[in-house]
Amino acid sequence: MDDSPIKFELIHIDRYTGARRGRIVTKHGTIETPVFMPVGTNATVKTLTNSLLNDINTEIILANAFHLYLRPGLEVLEHFQGLHNFMNWEKPILTDSGGFQVFSLPNTRLTDEKVIFKSPLDGSQIELTPEKSLDIQKVIGSDIAMVLDVCINSLSGYDAVKDSVQKTFNWALRSKRYHNSNGQALFGIVQGGLFEDLRNLSLSQITSLDFDGYALGGLAVGEKYQDSEKILKAFGNKLPENKPRYIMGIGSPTMMFLSVENGLDMFDCVLPTRMGRHGTALTWKGKLNLKSSEVKFDQKPIDEKCDCYTCKNHSRGYIHHLFKKDEVLGKILLSIHNLRFNISLVEKMREAIENDEFKFFKDEFFSSSTYSLTN
Amino acid sequence: MDDSPIKFELIHIDRYTGARRGRIVTKHGTIETPVFMPVGTNATVKTLTNSLLNDINTEIILANAFHLYLRPGLEVLEHFQGLHNFMNWEKPILTDSGGFQVFSLPNTRLTDEKVIFKSPLDGSQIELTPEKSLDIQKVIGSDIAMVLDVCINSLSGYDAVKDSVQKTFNWALRSKRYHNSNGQALFGIVQGGLFEDLRNLSLSQITSLDFDGYALGGLAVGEKYQDSEKILKAFGNKLPENKPRYIMGIGSPTMMFLSVENGLDMFDCVLPTRMGRHGTALTWKGKLNLKSSEVKFDQKPIDEKCDCYTCKNHSRGYIHHLFKKDEVLGKILLSIHNLRFNISLVEKMREAIENDEFKFFKDEFFSSSTYSLTN
Repeated sequence: MDDSPIKFELIHIDRYTGARRGRIVTKHGTIETPVFMPVGTNATVKTLTNSLLNDINTEIILANAFHLYLRPGLEVLEHFQGLHNFMNWEKPILTDSGGFQVFSLPNTRLTDEKVIFKSPLDGSQIELTPEKSLDIQKVIGSDIAMVLDVCINSLSGYDAVKDSVQKTFNWALRSKRYHNSNGQALFGIVQGGLFEDLRNLSLSQITSLDFDGYALGGLAVGEKYQDSEKILKAFGNKLPENKPRYIMGIGSPTMMFLSVENGLDMFDCVLPTRMGRHGTALTWKGKLNLKSSEVKFDQKPIDEKCDCYTCKNHSRGYIHHLFKKDEVLGKILLSIHNLRFNISLVEKMREAIENDEFKFFKDEFFSSSTYSLTN
Repeated sequence: MDDSPIKFELIHIDRYTGARRGRIVTKHGTIETPVFMPVGTNATVKTLTNSLLNDINTEIILANAFHLYLRPGLEVLEHFQGLHNFMNWEKPILTDSGGFQVFSLPNTRLTDEKVIFKSPLDGSQIELTPEKSLDIQKVIGSDIAMVLDVCINSLSGYDAVKDSVQKTFNWALRSKRYHNSNGQALFGIVQGGLFEDLRNLSLSQITSLDFDGYALGGLAVGEKYQDSEKILKAFGNKLPENKPRYIMGIGSPTMMFLSVENGLDMFDCVLPTRMGRHGTALTWKGKLNLKSSEVKFDQKPIDEKCDCYTCKNHSRGYIHHLFKKDEVLGKILLSIHNLRFNISLVEKMREAIENDEFKFFKDEFFSSSTYSLTN
């Protein structure tokens, strides 16, 4: 009997690619896959109300355990009985373990037991262990928690990556033993950098532990497209078929297509909101710079094919003006649009997969837009 | 026959005060008075979508002719056929003439004919005449335009104020002659600083010109409460009874009560949105600092009596967190709340006036809150 706190249903596999159509049932609702998860680092998807997030059909958001641990802090989250209540978000939440953030800090020190770093808030020394990361995620009350992994630079040498794979496995073991599900799913993370034998090793180690889902970590962290492509092609479909497969930090159309066609189901990225705040729109024809004076008089919506609030109500010229005046509404309107773009892209992918037309859909997407197939 | 592009209906005068309940019909919809007009300086009420503005029952917004003239500029506004289309705002818009902004700039030079100043954008010399201000407002396409007046410091000496009253009258005359209504109402502005005889002079001069409505200008610009009170008590109800009466730059609860009880119908102010962006909420009990650590664990809404999106969905503690992390959503949520507070305040004033209970409502408001009656 499967006693996982989430249920994964594999609905269909595209006949000509590895693309999968699935469904994850959580106690906060059902997620259709492939799914794009907007990032709500600090208990808010930047610039958007929950109401707007619901309007664009957001199914799940990702929150950062590390940031929430620093602020508002566990005492507050405990008092509010978790993040769902705190931010009044009723749908599923996935939390990362904090590993990626901690390893991005300067002067991080790693031992076999834990990672030691300085608080970016007050410089005090903090230690993070696999167990502590789970404690934090338990207080947050996410539907899906991630194990603490050792996330090193993907361009690191063989020995360093091998060491990180071993530590990642040891920590995954500790996490698996420590985790008391109580309604919260736990995903393992496969590391191994760009070395196929180490990826193989990590894959067999991590999948031996029977997690509720599996992630590919340590990709999309600065390596070349061709390198991520090689790993995704080799390992995407080696992850267990009966569990959700998540690739962390992916959000460009190019990487989303690559990930889905190689059997991945879930991805998250700050790209749509970050680009939006900086004035760039994602459209079905390619990227559009709303700060450019070329759109000053443009009465068309950002994207005529888009069904978002922004495209239904506002012109490129108006949004151009808002960015020229540095008005917050410009950032809001573009964040709405860009998130809706990513979400409608996975919605269309789902439909294509169901009809065994994923390859056709991908070809059409790239031939009718200026997005690059390879970056 | 009244050929004004707007119709003003005086519905009821409170039996015990000068408070009026009225209605202004424009081609973009009906405004119930007393009315609070959110300020949309740059073609956006800062941080809010039109949808949110509609949700809080915004009936009319104010836009700044001067700012819109600088950016996006008349060429863009003309291309978009006016501000309503440009920002997709379907309800009424009132534009100020630019006078207040121009006279706030350094090195402004005033002649009998015009005001000369340096563009804050590029330092180039710009001249503003009453006619040019109307041309700008015509391109903007507001429902209600304001004449260009001479707005000097309310603490200026007698001779300077007298001179400004005379110029204001000459410019009002020119405006009245030049204005080609074509669906756009034009309001005159009474100046005269804190001198009762000059206010009387300006009042008789301006009201002799049969504008579509009248404003009290040169108040709420830094003078003491007692001084504005004196002028409002003496002149509010001397403005023509059959036309809308507008007091510019008013938005605190104290000043709104004072204005309404002395017969004013319309006001605008950046106060609710500006306070909101800085972390202060207006509540029925008084001001509340959401940045204070006192509300860190507070699960209550900002105001339990409030029906806004923010109060229906979020706690003080959550908003505190957003401000601590400088997340835009905090500013958005507080702007929603504060505007709704001002708008629900005028809604309740309307009801009180209809029931001849304005004085009672005012007494109750100040006795159950920490707002000061005199500042």
